[in-house]
Amino acid sequence: MKTMKFPTSHKTQLMDISKEVSEFVIQSGVKNGICVVFTPHTTSSVFLFENRDPALRRDLLNALSLIASSDTQYLHTGGNAAAHLKSSRMGCSVTMIVVDGRPILGEWQGLFFGEFDGPRQEREVIIKVIEG
Amino acid sequence: MKTMKFPTSHKTQLMDISKEVSEFVIQSGVKNGICVVFTPHTTSSVFLFENRDPALRRDLLNALSLIASSDTQYLHTGGNAAAHLKSSRMGCSVTMIVVDGRPILGEWQGLFFGEFDGPRQEREVIIKVIEG
Amino acid sequence: MKTMKFPTSHKTQLMDISKEVSEFVIQSGVKNGICVVFTPHTTSSVFLFENRDPALRRDLLNALSLIASSDTQYLHTGGNAAAHLKSSRMGCSVTMIVVDGRPILGEWQGLFFGEFDGPRQEREVIIKVIEG
Repeated sequence: MKTMKFPTSHKTQLMDISKEVSEFVIQSGVKNGICVVFTPHTTSSVFLFENRDPALRRDLLNALSLIASSDTQYLHTGGNAAAHLKSSRMGCSVTMIVVDGRPILGEWQGLFFGEFDGPRQEREVIIKVIEG
Repeated sequence: MKTMKFPTSHKTQLMDISKEVSEFVIQSGVKNGICVVFTPHTTSSVFLFENRDPALRRDLLNALSLIASSDTQYLHTGGNAAAHLKSSRMGCSVTMIVVDGRPILGEWQGLFFGEFDGPRQEREVIIKVIEG
Repeated sequence: MKTMKFPTSHKTQLMDISKEVSEFVIQSGVKNGICVVFTPHTTSSVFLFENRDPALRRDLLNALSLIASSDTQYLHTGGNAAAHLKSSRMGCSVTMIVVDGRPILGEWQGLFFGEFDGPRQEREVIIKVIEG
């Protein structure tokens, strides 16, 4: 198991963490199995998404703001209700399949960390590999 | 493996089941591995969400009703199309990481059961722990 | 591990792949464990949904088009931004629990492949079973 710790730099932000996750799986030495990627926060997410076009990441953040607008009157008084809603909708856990020592990803597919209430000095993503 | 069975009391309702899931993992004796939590219904969900503020749970239910309103004219004639849509959007399976005999959850993070077509006399959540 | 390959026939389409997934789990000979179902595309999804009413599948596709309309002006110039958004929102990985040699599914529950940018000659779903 490994815990990645990193800062974020914007209020909302999508970061491709595929490379870091793949490197950890390679280092684990597990050849075949699965890999669980989990974030222990409630205003961030991990999920699979297209990995080439930064404009598409902007489109996703815009679409999330339509279903969880920061202008809406929420009952939660913390000021970050929209971030909590986005986190729960995009999810906090992704399970990947490990083959030949690497997690499978499609040619255009990346594993992303979504920051919805940044910037933060330290965010965490926990990676666990299971052989089998 | 364990099957939790419990009633729900409202049409839509979010229940924090973190404690029950953690207790089962502790009892399983598995120190390191993963834990899959699954609900076999199509009008309920399991997902990760903020665990302190009941008002935020209301905000989430309200936001879900905006994207799957019970007032919309659906093609499905069962009367509970909105509940099916909410279930598929929030998901029916969550994978957690087990360390030192417990599933990892952030300080403000809980595992929730979402009821979208209640009240029901018996709902099920199935928990499976894998060592590794 | 098994890779299913199949064509799709419509622009957007939901296909019940429960039978194929179950048959692979049975053939794997694993009696107890978990099963991860993953799609390596960024304009398709795998997810759990009601398995009886085709009208309800239409309702889900309609609801997804409301939150990711193909009429919206997106920043992504590929013409399929809506498909990418739907894929990320419904997810590309589902973990099921295997008992007595079969993946658990509720009576009304199926595992679906969602095509959001078809028709395509070849789509892939990868299935991995872990014993434990």
